[in-house]
Amino acid sequence: MAEEKYDLVILGGGTAGYVSAIRASQLGKKVALVEKSLLGGTCLHKGCIPTKALLKSAEVSRTVSNAKDYGVDIDAFKLNFSRIQERKNDIVNQMYSGVSHLMEHNKIDVYNGIGRILGPSIFSPQSGTISVEFENGESELIPNNNVLIATGSRPMSLPFLPFDHEIVLSSDDILKLEQLPNSLVIIGGGVIGLEFASLLTDFGVEVTVIEASSHILPTESKSIATQLKKELTNRGTIFYENTQLSEDQIAIENEKITIELNEEQLEFDKALVSIGRKPNTDDIGLNNTKIKCTPSNHIIVNEYQQTEDKHIYAAGDCIGQLQLAHVGTKEGINAIEHMFDQSPIPVDYMKMPKCVYTHPEVASIGVNQEQAKAENKNAKSYKVPFKAIGKAVIENITNQNGFCEVVIDQDNEEILGFNMIGPHVTELINEVSLLQFMNGSSLELGLTTHAHPSLSEVLMELGLKVEGRAIHV
Amino acid sequence: MAEEKYDLVILGGGTAGYVSAIRASQLGKKVALVEKSLLGGTCLHKGCIPTKALLKSAEVSRTVSNAKDYGVDIDAFKLNFSRIQERKNDIVNQMYSGVSHLMEHNKIDVYNGIGRILGPSIFSPQSGTISVEFENGESELIPNNNVLIATGSRPMSLPFLPFDHEIVLSSDDILKLEQLPNSLVIIGGGVIGLEFASLLTDFGVEVTVIEASSHILPTESKSIATQLKKELTNRGTIFYENTQLSEDQIAIENEKITIELNEEQLEFDKALVSIGRKPNTDDIGLNNTKIKCTPSNHIIVNEYQQTEDKHIYAAGDCIGQLQLAHVGTKEGINAIEHMFDQSPIPVDYMKMPKCVYTHPEVASIGVNQEQAKAENKNAKSYKVPFKAIGKAVIENITNQNGFCEVVIDQDNEEILGFNMIGPHVTELINEVSLLQFMNGSSLELGLTTHAHPSLSEVLMELGLKVEGRAIHV
Repeated sequence: MAEEKYDLVILGGGTAGYVSAIRASQLGKKVALVEKSLLGGTCLHKGCIPTKALLKSAEVSRTVSNAKDYGVDIDAFKLNFSRIQERKNDIVNQMYSGVSHLMEHNKIDVYNGIGRILGPSIFSPQSGTISVEFENGESELIPNNNVLIATGSRPMSLPFLPFDHEIVLSSDDILKLEQLPNSLVIIGGGVIGLEFASLLTDFGVEVTVIEASSHILPTESKSIATQLKKELTNRGTIFYENTQLSEDQIAIENEKITIELNEEQLEFDKALVSIGRKPNTDDIGLNNTKIKCTPSNHIIVNEYQQTEDKHIYAAGDCIGQLQLAHVGTKEGINAIEHMFDQSPIPVDYMKMPKCVYTHPEVASIGVNQEQAKAENKNAKSYKVPFKAIGKAVIENITNQNGFCEVVIDQDNEEILGFNMIGPHVTELINEVSLLQFMNGSSLELGLTTHAHPSLSEVLMELGLKVEGRAIHV
Repeated sequence: MAEEKYDLVILGGGTAGYVSAIRASQLGKKVALVEKSLLGGTCLHKGCIPTKALLKSAEVSRTVSNAKDYGVDIDAFKLNFSRIQERKNDIVNQMYSGVSHLMEHNKIDVYNGIGRILGPSIFSPQSGTISVEFENGESELIPNNNVLIATGSRPMSLPFLPFDHEIVLSSDDILKLEQLPNSLVIIGGGVIGLEFASLLTDFGVEVTVIEASSHILPTESKSIATQLKKELTNRGTIFYENTQLSEDQIAIENEKITIELNEEQLEFDKALVSIGRKPNTDDIGLNNTKIKCTPSNHIIVNEYQQTEDKHIYAAGDCIGQLQLAHVGTKEGINAIEHMFDQSPIPVDYMKMPKCVYTHPEVASIGVNQEQAKAENKNAKSYKVPFKAIGKAVIENITNQNGFCEVVIDQDNEEILGFNMIGPHVTELINEVSLLQFMNGSSLELGLTTHAHPSLSEVLMELGLKVEGRAIHV
């Protein structure tokens, strides 16, 4: 048994977990963090960071192949995929070492093992003591006053097409490839699938995306999905939307996967299955607690992240809200500040930025026009195209097809959402996030001086357009 | 004489002028715009836009030369300078056509000629009637109720080194070069000089910068100037600070310019003189009005841009405040809304973003630590380095030397300024501009959810750092 009772034990050292640990440490609390694999979790090792590192190499490769348009003539170029992977790994390692350093600096005790919640016992009248099982078979009990569950999620497989890690790959597997396949089918055209589609298309892989819904990126607006599909199609990606696969359409033989689509047999070197993620809640001792879960096994929490066992909180992917690192961070800090009486502001999911790092990039906050209509809002949307913005023309004179859109509730002039596709919108969305956090109006956005020339001027014009006084559109 | 009396005549079709014309048109006013050269003015034809177009090609060339680090191997590349110039011209032309279209769309009458203000006459009891002199020698009088002077500025020359447009160049001249010089001396290390230093260094020109002040970028903080100098020096730019030139140090012969510095004779193919700009106020009829000017010939205006002749307003470079396109825009709109009774908010120069599009980029708003101290403020500054930000590591794993800094008045917790150097800070500054416009606090900046990974997370960490609760630093 650990010598001292902790104020808090956190299960899971991913983004939600380690940031929460730091916040609790800042509040003077004694914190233990239990991580079964590597600090930094999915985001750092299998998600945000490695994919963005690959996307950066894809951007460089695209820049090189278009360099002539900018007055830089190149004889020939070729990808060095092992260098690309090495660079990605260097980035992950550098940041991993940063997180480890942060744990030391904040005096957080890290336990490397599998943590499970125990029920009430002679040691503790309430559930929550954590048992850590180490790799060497030994185990240790960690008594505590509070628990934060931040165990994250993992890739979901298709029942009839399990991951074999060779041909049928998860997003974890595909990051470890030593060489690029010639062809790849991506089953699931959501955020993860499309980021890989974008970067692998730029790397010269023949990419086919199959999406069951009526359009790719089902959580984004139809017009944005259409624009993204068009631009990826122009670069060579093939799309099948509205296409639900069944077992009898698929065969794996001779190290290839064959899929029958529209009476054609399509053959691919590899398949990436990216149909969603499931919560890591099955082996953490929830049965020893009063914690309730949804049918999809996500932990149910209140607005302060408390489970039915009020001293046990949960944050991040395991609660199944927006599964994004910065949302997990917000939920985790909300939990910590509530358990240690800091009166936090609950997470408002309508004000969380959502990004897709494809080329072109997509970003949104709140709802789009279709979602607003579905909620019976009297919604009106306003749009400004990037082609009206000087800096967008400078970035790419032949393609400024992106746009930014704001959805306004006409009954009360409230901003319901922003939807954006185009250059650097994954940065621009943060200005909008500030506006929404501060309950700003479209007029305030429009009257704010934006540096000229900058891409962000699109937001100023958009704010002014709502007021009927845009200058350049 | 024009058939009808205009509500407003604007002298100068640069950014301040044409945007003001659109705003007045939106208010239902009859507007004439007098432009002696091309609509769009300095910003579009000789400033912001063409320089950023060249900087974009410089960025591509830098990306190509570093592509190997990102896993893209290139045999060899060479610059095609005529293609670079052609692309720049295409961008300018596309945007010029956009501005022309905006004038038609807003029913603004454009007079192509030299406009001058007339004094009181039998036609008009007050000064302000505009006489336009056309290229063919004819002229026309334009009666009006209000005038906005937005005649801009032009490059200033050194008294002992006049522009010869062949060897001694202004920033206008250098944009027209048909081929790159081997070597260039830039006299004046302010914003304009340094943007050319950055792009021409990237294009392989041997660039030397001579600055009279104790450090380059004298309006920015010493630490930012030092960082920029260091990074440009690493790429090959040579700097002489604290170096005031005199006539006897300079000689021009055999199509070269020679400058004696520290007892050495340095020879250059060309010189760019970028020591500042002077207002275009000398030939516009100010002597026919009550308008007063500063000793440097900038027009004196009140907070609503009114001159001493209350129906004559002035905006943009000719009033000599921050000489930036977006500031001119703000001043112009302020003038229009005041003359047509719209109760504008006067321009707050402490809240205007200022950008330098060098590589690395520099951006600021308000004052820096040295300026705050000089104003006897009880100022404290907080800094977050980009190396703590994942997206900055992804952008460039070998160099994240940039940082963002906020200066706080400790007596009242007011934000006095932001100072930034690093990737995309010319976009990030716009979020800060919104914060300042909305009178937000550092805590509000820190509590705003920023997408992960994004460069803008640096602002969130900075806001939290002021509160003693940054996560990653």
